Amino acid sequence: MTTLPSSLKQIALFLNRLPGIGEKTANRLAMYFLRMPEIELKTFGENISNLKSRTKLCKECFNLTEEEFCGICTDNTRDKSIITVVETVLDLLSFEVGNIYHGVYHVLHGRIDPLNSIGPDDIYINQLLNRIKELSSFAKASADKDELKEIILATNPDMEGEATARYISNKLKTSNFKFQITRLAYGLPMGANLEYADYGTLGKAIEGRREY
Amino acid sequence: MTTLPSSLKQIALFLNRLPGIGEKTANRLAMYFLRMPEIELKTFGENISNLKSRTKLCKECFNLTEEEFCGICTDNTRDKSIITVVETVLDLLSFEVGNIYHGVYHVLHGRIDPLNSIGPDDIYINQLLNRIKELSSFAKASADKDELKEIILATNPDMEGEATARYISNKLKTSNFKFQITRLAYGLPMGANLEYADYGTLGKAIEGRREY
Repeated sequence: MTTLPSSLKQIALFLNRLPGIGEKTANRLAMYFLRMPEIELKTFGENISNLKSRTKLCKECFNLTEEEFCGICTDNTRDKSIITVVETVLDLLSFEVGNIYHGVYHVLHGRIDPLNSIGPDDIYINQLLNRIKELSSFAKASADKDELKEIILATNPDMEGEATARYISNKLKTSNFKFQITRLAYGLPMGANLEYADYGTLGKAIEGRREY
Repeated sequence: MTTLPSSLKQIALFLNRLPGIGEKTANRLAMYFLRMPEIELKTFGENISNLKSRTKLCKECFNLTEEEFCGICTDNTRDKSIITVVETVLDLLSFEVGNIYHGVYHVLHGRIDPLNSIGPDDIYINQLLNRIKELSSFAKASADKDELKEIILATNPDMEGEATARYISNKLKTSNFKFQITRLAYGLPMGANLEYADYGTLGKAIEGRREY
C-alpha cells in the first residue's frame, strides 16, 4: 500500500494492530479521522501521547487513576465496609455503569491462570490480603471507624475466575477475621431463553433457586 | 463514568464516536492502549495530531497525499492512458490491494445523491472533465505523449453510483473525444452461491454472460 500518504498509513497500521480491528476497518477509521475537526484530533493525539505517563494505579484498590487514589476510594459517599474483588478495570466499569453497587473495589489485574503461567503472586492478591489485614486491625483500634463487613468475590464464572475466587477465599478463611465472604449469584441472565440455556447454567439456576 | 481517569476517559469517549465502535469496545481499546509501549503511543499521537495539516489532495487525481502529487500519479510505471473513476479513496485502495490494475485514478470524493443534497458540483466531477479535456488537447499537440484511451467508471453498483456514472458518461459523450468509456462488469461475485444470489444480480449475470 504505497498509495496512502505516510502519516495516514502509519495510523491505519497502528489501528490494524488493535484487537478486533482489521485492515479494512483500520483504513476506514483513518479516513474518518481526516474528516474530523483538527482541534479534536490534536486533543486526542495529546491524550494518547501522555496516557501512559499520566495514568497510575490507585494505592488503595489498584483501579486506574491520575491521582494517588482513585475517584471511588476518595468518594466519601461510598460504603467502605464492602469490597468487591474484580479481575479487571473493565469489570469494575460494568458495575459502575449500572449504578447498582455503592461499596468499593479491589482490582486484581488478572486471574490465576496456570496454563499461561500466571500465579497468585503475579496479580494483586497479596495487596488485597494486606489491605484487608490493615483494615481489620485499624477497625479494632478505633471503634468509630467503619468495620470491614463483606468481601464480594466477583471474578468471572469460568475456570480461572473460580480458581482465583477459591484461592482468595481459602487465604481469608485461615485468618479469623469477622467479615462475610460472598460470591456473585449464578443463574439465568435477565431476558434469557430457557431453550438456549446451557445445562451448566441451568444446574446453577436450580441449585440457587429462591422462595418466590 | 467518574471512575476512569480523565485522559483515559477522553480517549474512550473519542473512540466511542468513531463509526462501528460502541462504548464497551471503546473502553476495551483504551485499556489496550495502556498496555502498549509508550513510544508507539507517542508516535501515534503525533501522527493523529498532524494528520490534517499534513494530508492534502493530489492535484491530478485527488487521491490523498503529503506531496503535491500522489504516489500513483508520480509512478512512471503506471499506464496514464487509462483513468478509473472511483467514489472514495477506500475504493481506490481496494483496487490497489489486489495489484490488478495498473492505470491511474480519479477520486470523486462522493457520489451524486439528491436525497442528501449532493449534486455534481459538490464532488470532483468538474475537475475530472477538465483533466480529460486537458489530457486530450495535450495529446493532440504532442504526438509522442500517451493518448487517453479509456475511462473506467468504477462508482458503486447502487442507485447513487449508477446516477453518478450515467452523469459523467453523458457529459463525456457530448464532447467528441476519442476514448472508450466503460463500466465495471456486473455479475456473481467469486465464491458466490446461486441459491442466495438476489435476482437483480442474477439478471445482470445472465445479461452479461460470455462465451465459454
